[in-house]
Amino acid sequence: MIQDILQNIQPLNAKTMKQARELQAKFIKPIGSLGELEEISIRFAGITGKIKNIAPRKIVCLFGSDHGIYEAGVCSSPQDFTGRLMNAYATNQNAGINILARQAGAELRLYDLGIKNFAPHENIITHKFLHEGTNNFLKERAMSYELAEKVIEFGINLVREAKSNGIDIIGTGEVGMANTTPACACIMAALKSRNENLVGRGAGLNDEAFARKKCVVLKALDFHKDSLTDPVNILSCVGGLDIAAMTGVFIGGAVYRVPVVIDGVISIAAALLAYQLNPLTRDYMFASHESAEPAYKYAANVMNLTPALKLSMRLGEGTGCAIFMQIIDSALAIINNMGTFDEL
Amino acid sequence: MIQDILQNIQPLNAKTMKQARELQAKFIKPIGSLGELEEISIRFAGITGKIKNIAPRKIVCLFGSDHGIYEAGVCSSPQDFTGRLMNAYATNQNAGINILARQAGAELRLYDLGIKNFAPHENIITHKFLHEGTNNFLKERAMSYELAEKVIEFGINLVREAKSNGIDIIGTGEVGMANTTPACACIMAALKSRNENLVGRGAGLNDEAFARKKCVVLKALDFHKDSLTDPVNILSCVGGLDIAAMTGVFIGGAVYRVPVVIDGVISIAAALLAYQLNPLTRDYMFASHESAEPAYKYAANVMNLTPALKLSMRLGEGTGCAIFMQIIDSALAIINNMGTFDEL
Repeated sequence: MIQDILQNIQPLNAKTMKQARELQAKFIKPIGSLGELEEISIRFAGITGKIKNIAPRKIVCLFGSDHGIYEAGVCSSPQDFTGRLMNAYATNQNAGINILARQAGAELRLYDLGIKNFAPHENIITHKFLHEGTNNFLKERAMSYELAEKVIEFGINLVREAKSNGIDIIGTGEVGMANTTPACACIMAALKSRNENLVGRGAGLNDEAFARKKCVVLKALDFHKDSLTDPVNILSCVGGLDIAAMTGVFIGGAVYRVPVVIDGVISIAAALLAYQLNPLTRDYMFASHESAEPAYKYAANVMNLTPALKLSMRLGEGTGCAIFMQIIDSALAIINNMGTFDEL
Repeated sequence: MIQDILQNIQPLNAKTMKQARELQAKFIKPIGSLGELEEISIRFAGITGKIKNIAPRKIVCLFGSDHGIYEAGVCSSPQDFTGRLMNAYATNQNAGINILARQAGAELRLYDLGIKNFAPHENIITHKFLHEGTNNFLKERAMSYELAEKVIEFGINLVREAKSNGIDIIGTGEVGMANTTPACACIMAALKSRNENLVGRGAGLNDEAFARKKCVVLKALDFHKDSLTDPVNILSCVGGLDIAAMTGVFIGGAVYRVPVVIDGVISIAAALLAYQLNPLTRDYMFASHESAEPAYKYAANVMNLTPALKLSMRLGEGTGCAIFMQIIDSALAIINNMGTFDEL
């Protein structure tokens, strides 16, 4: 099914992009002087096929899941923080992403894809693919190949539904203790890199745990080396349920022509895998902020994506997406409202 | 008068900054993981002396003025664009800054400090210091030393009034054909640099005019070399009415403890001169976006300011300030609303 879907992805609409560029050349400003704001609205025109667009219906999809690699000692927080944070998003609604999504006028959608010992909650969409989270990928595949496919399809379908409900833009967030480790392993596997400098400190490891994390990533890549042949196998071997779902969302964004915003290192790992499945997916992605995690830059560079924000953030949850959505609104307001030299 | 005022500037409130940092360390996120968002709200706490702040009353002050150096052939647009753009801001209200200020919930305040052949307009504060704009600084001082002082004082008083009217934050914008030339000359004079690579293409010069602009800046710095001894003399010799007024605004921000946002290269030239008059002014400034003009980076680096946005913008008008004000609102929303681990 995924292979069929990937072949349905069409390029951006070159005609409306040209028209959007030409329109902005008439505006009362030096040509190109609004830089990335202009590029954002031009890409929107290419995605929707309309020169002028608005994006009032915003969602941030936040995928919660646990990771078997946690037991390798690559995370400084207790594993039950995944569920406790998810509960804070759903109940008190006063975590970073709750606040920033409200600021951006975005709805937060919470998904439990496999959080350990976590009961259903009325504000969370429970769709557990693995009740205990993924396997420890130092010992076996994080999940089966078939499950990786299934989770990707879930992400694709999520976008299909969002599109049919009139959603204009989707942000990609996550929560899951230790999940920078699979993200980093996925990026290094995708780039065929064994450079340990791509491994970062995540939420803030001490030197000893940081050294261990580097070893764990390199060991895992070595353990699975004969299987890391394509993005679905990479997800299956060293990925996570969050990364697999987001990979589907990035594919779905391109299939159903909905702009999808990249958050930090976990999100860009998924974006990179989607890009490797079909490079056209890249044109439907927007890079929000430059994560403090080193692997982020390498992945962004391969896809030729330039993040707009430089805020040294490393929280995840989709927080960078939410902030960037306000910049998207500004970019669209410009193309929709700016005066021309003819009027002047 | 200016010397007295400069001595009244107090440092940030270290106690409230410490409290703001400690509060955020209790929030449900890894310590420091919201990066610059945390630093913004900590600096606000230092400015206002309160841990929690809001900034609903925002203004962008846009200073219009003409520049005698225009006649040296350093600008590709007709000189009357200064007035025509000013008129668009005031009448049709559909230029870049009109749209972006609306998005940010900021009020736009327009000032005519010396636009050639430009009549008063009900939406513009007319305060002409020079009816024909500044002098050509290849031949004489752009303005007298006394006038430079007077314009700086005007900027300081503007902040005093804004403060007494309850304004929470001020953005600094400008319009004036050729004004990247004095901005660049001011930065190079302040940094005692004669590196022509600091000169940029402004609104988009062709190669010939760009080469001429570099020559003009170096010639002017040479012509005035014995007089470029302090920031007021620099403004008098190679500055502009816009840059002088903004220098006053940056000083006023520090005196009256109102955060002031830096826009692009013209704005940061003024910030740098204020900083050289009293380095404490720096702590009341926020860098919004990294301008495409090369001199911007050098000035930001000297002041150890890191712009949050990387959008390749070079429009001026205060457009970067307006976008950044939304990020400030997000930063303040975080410190005001985020939950703590104790609750969790």
